[in-house]
Amino acid sequence: MSAATTRVAAEALRGLVARLFVAAGLPAGTAQAVADGLVDAELEGTSSHGVMLVDLYLGRIREGSVSTHAAGTIVSDRGAAVVLDAGHALGQPTADQAMALAVERAKRLGAGVVAVRHGFHFGAARRYALQAALADCVGIVACNTRPLMPAPGGAARVVGNNPLAIAVPSDGAIPIVLDMATSEAAMGRIRMAAKAGRAIPAGWAVAADGTPTTEPAAAIAGMLLPAAGPKGFGLAFVLDLMCGLLSGGASGDAVRPLYGDHEAPYDCSHLFIAIDVAHFADPRQFKAAAAAAAERVRHGARAPGVARLYAPGEIEWQRRSDAQGEVQLEASVVAMLTAAARALGVSALPLTHDNEAGHAP
Amino acid sequence: MSAATTRVAAEALRGLVARLFVAAGLPAGTAQAVADGLVDAELEGTSSHGVMLVDLYLGRIREGSVSTHAAGTIVSDRGAAVVLDAGHALGQPTADQAMALAVERAKRLGAGVVAVRHGFHFGAARRYALQAALADCVGIVACNTRPLMPAPGGAARVVGNNPLAIAVPSDGAIPIVLDMATSEAAMGRIRMAAKAGRAIPAGWAVAADGTPTTEPAAAIAGMLLPAAGPKGFGLAFVLDLMCGLLSGGASGDAVRPLYGDHEAPYDCSHLFIAIDVAHFADPRQFKAAAAAAAERVRHGARAPGVARLYAPGEIEWQRRSDAQGEVQLEASVVAMLTAAARALGVSALPLTHDNEAGHAP
Repeated sequence: MSAATTRVAAEALRGLVARLFVAAGLPAGTAQAVADGLVDAELEGTSSHGVMLVDLYLGRIREGSVSTHAAGTIVSDRGAAVVLDAGHALGQPTADQAMALAVERAKRLGAGVVAVRHGFHFGAARRYALQAALADCVGIVACNTRPLMPAPGGAARVVGNNPLAIAVPSDGAIPIVLDMATSEAAMGRIRMAAKAGRAIPAGWAVAADGTPTTEPAAAIAGMLLPAAGPKGFGLAFVLDLMCGLLSGGASGDAVRPLYGDHEAPYDCSHLFIAIDVAHFADPRQFKAAAAAAAERVRHGARAPGVARLYAPGEIEWQRRSDAQGEVQLEASVVAMLTAAARALGVSALPLTHDNEAGHAP
Repeated sequence: MSAATTRVAAEALRGLVARLFVAAGLPAGTAQAVADGLVDAELEGTSSHGVMLVDLYLGRIREGSVSTHAAGTIVSDRGAAVVLDAGHALGQPTADQAMALAVERAKRLGAGVVAVRHGFHFGAARRYALQAALADCVGIVACNTRPLMPAPGGAARVVGNNPLAIAVPSDGAIPIVLDMATSEAAMGRIRMAAKAGRAIPAGWAVAADGTPTTEPAAAIAGMLLPAAGPKGFGLAFVLDLMCGLLSGGASGDAVRPLYGDHEAPYDCSHLFIAIDVAHFADPRQFKAAAAAAAERVRHGARAPGVARLYAPGEIEWQRRSDAQGEVQLEASVVAMLTAAARALGVSALPLTHDNEAGHAP
């Protein structure tokens, strides 16, 4: 373990993060749900969706562009089609609410589609897709982000790297879930290459004028490329329209920069689809067949030097198992959380050895 | 124009292809729908989904693994959830039928999901997604193929390059539709590189033992790689399960080789989803906003040397406009169609100058 990281118990970290959001004005249950989403992302090895976001969320609550509401408001409700206005609440509680609604409609009608406007960052999309799968529904989740990627051949950002998650019910121990951004790579990986002084693969990014680059610095000043070129671009584009236009919310550059002006709402849009397995097939047979298919992936022939094959969703599950209930935080994240605790007057345990709030570290 | 190609009027080609399928036992309207699907694919520049397939379709009808039925049978009908047994009929009529059902449920309930078992090749998925979009529904279409791709790091084919198409209603002249296979590249492009003696880009394929290759010959003997690695793999995997398990049909290697034994049914599965815009938003506003978003893509800044940017679905539309109602066929396809006409005793016009059937060329 590096000297620049701190290992903490996930349960204690959940408590700290929940205390911070309660102190910021969220109801206790909502604060806990947000904390669970962020800490679970840490356990699953996706720290970009983890507690580093606490600073952003608290800053936006303080500046008023994120509300402390626990739920959104249904503005249209027609059978399998529901529109929810999230009112710029944190995305975790409104996504929970939206997928619960989609599942409820799917149980009643076979399918449910919930479009969400005036949404905020909801963390990892896989979480809500799995929420549906646990209820024996195929779960589909998408959202839009501000434009980050050019069209193939373009030199301007015209579409977000809008994520898509799809979970399939399974009776196996390991959940089956796809969770992909529609960019070829994440900006975080380009920043890591920049730090390491390594070139990036062709196809990850273009420079600001749209020309291909393998230089991390030029890529950072430039744009992410869509995954598999026109495929990722097309997928990102139709997801943007589905999220933004079905909800009557924002799409394209009407979605604002997440890390931009904390006073301006982010204003993204979400989409949640649930398809109830029992309306089509015997759920037990369906789930057994899905688990068997994932097993076939795992036990397929491997290329030389490859130790293990993973079915979709398995890497995050494995990381969570390996974490044994502990999260490793970078020093900068520890410092941010400690400062937030001090500012909000709550105990910074487990990050300090204080026994009560108010004991400055 | 190359000496090895023949240019024919699309309308006359539609007539020939329809005559062939009528002679093979299809009802006239069904034969025309199949012909339209195949000839439209030619006009749209996707000849891999065009009239070259006539030979395969007729061969399978002759051998009994494709039926001449005009429609599938509804085996389960529960609100927004319908299961259709296509009975190994040609995919074009059963896909038309399935998407029409999905749209009808969407108009009634907000969304409709139709899963199809015992299906056959349906040509280009975009066609049925656009069928929904023309009815003011978001249209989503997927199907599975036999396994063609390994998991990342794998050395065995475990999942098809299962296509996904999504169309979004628009009031613009140019339809908005994503249509992607989940492989990074099509085998056809690898075969073209082999003919030209060119290396293929890294990331398109692996050799039979799963090791990366840029040699077309090794790639042809090996496997296609998923688009963007784990993203395309995960998408292909969940689409396989959604198509095969919701329909109670085949998934994984229970789907047989399309070009394999003509006596064994192909037995793929399809999925059609329609989401009715009017259940969520004002369709006129939705369609105007979608068209405007596509316009922004087209008119965005371009990288040096790039003449034009395309929104998803535009290239096929442009090719169709440019074709001016004419299709260019390779000599081998002309020979195949002419031989089929002779064998079935129908006129080979427009491919010959005969005025009637029975005049041998």
